[in-house]
Amino acid sequence: MPMKAFFSPHHAGHRPSQTFRHGRIVANRDLPTRAENILTALRQDGHTLLNAAPHGMTPIAAVHTPEYLDFLEQAWVEWRKIEGASEDVFPYIFPVRGMDHGYPTSIVGRAGYHMHDCWAPIGEHTWAVARDSANLAVEAAEHLLKGERAVYALCRPSGHHAFPDMGGGNCFLNNAAIATQHLRRSFGRVALIDVDVHHGNGSQGVFWRRDDVLFVSLHRDPIDYHPYFAGHAHERGEGNGLGFNLNLPLPARTSDDAFLAALETACTRIAAFQAEALVVSLGVDAHEDDPTAGLAVTFNGFRRIGARLAALNLPTVLVQEGGYNMDTIARCVAGALAGFEGRETTAA
Amino acid sequence: MPMKAFFSPHHAGHRPSQTFRHGRIVANRDLPTRAENILTALRQDGHTLLNAAPHGMTPIAAVHTPEYLDFLEQAWVEWRKIEGASEDVFPYIFPVRGMDHGYPTSIVGRAGYHMHDCWAPIGEHTWAVARDSANLAVEAAEHLLKGERAVYALCRPSGHHAFPDMGGGNCFLNNAAIATQHLRRSFGRVALIDVDVHHGNGSQGVFWRRDDVLFVSLHRDPIDYHPYFAGHAHERGEGNGLGFNLNLPLPARTSDDAFLAALETACTRIAAFQAEALVVSLGVDAHEDDPTAGLAVTFNGFRRIGARLAALNLPTVLVQEGGYNMDTIARCVAGALAGFEGRETTAA
Repeated sequence: MPMKAFFSPHHAGHRPSQTFRHGRIVANRDLPTRAENILTALRQDGHTLLNAAPHGMTPIAAVHTPEYLDFLEQAWVEWRKIEGASEDVFPYIFPVRGMDHGYPTSIVGRAGYHMHDCWAPIGEHTWAVARDSANLAVEAAEHLLKGERAVYALCRPSGHHAFPDMGGGNCFLNNAAIATQHLRRSFGRVALIDVDVHHGNGSQGVFWRRDDVLFVSLHRDPIDYHPYFAGHAHERGEGNGLGFNLNLPLPARTSDDAFLAALETACTRIAAFQAEALVVSLGVDAHEDDPTAGLAVTFNGFRRIGARLAALNLPTVLVQEGGYNMDTIARCVAGALAGFEGRETTAA
Repeated sequence: MPMKAFFSPHHAGHRPSQTFRHGRIVANRDLPTRAENILTALRQDGHTLLNAAPHGMTPIAAVHTPEYLDFLEQAWVEWRKIEGASEDVFPYIFPVRGMDHGYPTSIVGRAGYHMHDCWAPIGEHTWAVARDSANLAVEAAEHLLKGERAVYALCRPSGHHAFPDMGGGNCFLNNAAIATQHLRRSFGRVALIDVDVHHGNGSQGVFWRRDDVLFVSLHRDPIDYHPYFAGHAHERGEGNGLGFNLNLPLPARTSDDAFLAALETACTRIAAFQAEALVVSLGVDAHEDDPTAGLAVTFNGFRRIGARLAALNLPTVLVQEGGYNMDTIARCVAGALAGFEGRETTAA
């Protein structure tokens, strides 16, 4: 049975034109086309495409800090007051070790405080669009609370690199974490699994000290890959959360069978956790033809990933994360959803 | 009596063409002309201009970590292997809170690990020139160990933003910290005072837990000014170093009298510390016409700063830090040295 899929007609208002990569200003990969292509494929597959009701700031503020939300709201207007500044907000200095002594008042300082990289430009409409994106995740979670088996949220911008007080990697609000936290209203234990090619460092950060949420991430080994400073197997959580964070870093260009073997480990842990509901950070940039060039999962691999996640037999929210090859992402997403439902996709 | 001044004829090999500021790639202010102008003024004032003998890596490795030094040595060659990379090395992602779980192997990861901002581009000759610059500071310290009263080192690149394992703000090796540590071979207690318009965050980091070195910094308040995340009055050191770090942040556009009043506080603390030798991080970007636009010290103000430091009556190494107005920096430096010596400068 096709599933409910939520999307926002306003996502294209967030349209970052540039990013700072390898010392150059280059085109940003988070194009509105990403979401349009996925939408088209889901329509073709007969999914029920719906807009979301507004759920306000409460579910978002359950994950993110007040000063971070204030920053996201004010950043662009403050930034544009700087003489000669770029169209979008970019940080350049960061509160790393030995430089963590306070909270600056200026927009340059706040940008560095609330962003961990130069890859999450904030434009005029980013705040509004990020709220819309998070709202889709809340709407999807709401449907689970009402008894739905599985729901998909076409979130754009993505969310899994966003920490409680920090964005990065084209993420601002952590949609999947917000859905996870929202599900805790009814479900005692929720698992959040991340199959994006990049480690879900933000999601890990949100639930790092929590034992009511299990976070599991499969991703390209960060030792020589974005996000570089998180995602190793030895990161297992702290305090109450120790043992409730499972990273499964994979070698470069890992393909279907090895990915599925790691997913089996992940699912075994989720079952042992006795999760009552599941959130999936469904990035599809692990595809073999994605320009991020991290792993080498095939179209059929995404179908198998969907099928394996469905076999957990849990109420499930699937949240869109990365995927940057405009010719393949829609088929990857449609394939994962079809695999989840045990049927075929017609998307090509 | 004119003082010995050490300079390197090779400094111009470090010639960064760009930096990433306010979301744009703009011209880098650390031009070779800075040092050339200062050199001309010092010649005019009759100072004894000398090259330095080589002192090797030992004094540098007494302050900086092995992996950081390896990084500086290898960075440019590794960087240039990245397809499409810029001429100079620039980081874009940083190991901030929650992202401090390991040491990456790739050059992009290492660049972010060892740099706290996007303002310290590493070019083909940066490593060699930074070593030369640090070597001048060691040479100056050597002359104090041999009984000289005061010596100046025309260091370029600057050093005070460099931590033991991290550069930033056009700094790579912390020349002043290296001189300070080198002086500890003979002097039991050494004070390091920083009058650059920017907080000496790197120097603070080097001596943060030490009670044998007193670090004092006068600078524009970082609450809304570079480096944003360090330099507040409440930062007083930790462990054995608690109380041996004194920050004196100053309001925007502070001029001579208020600056000298803060300097009086600094000198009182240095005297109470019973320092046996002094190192001065002599940035002159606190000048009223500097493009960094932080404070508003006049030419005469720098003369008074030099005179007040001389009144501490300590063996003193003066190390060049920032200063970016090509029309004023030479006169500021010459004035500070003349003030130190109680004579006039002829530099205009």
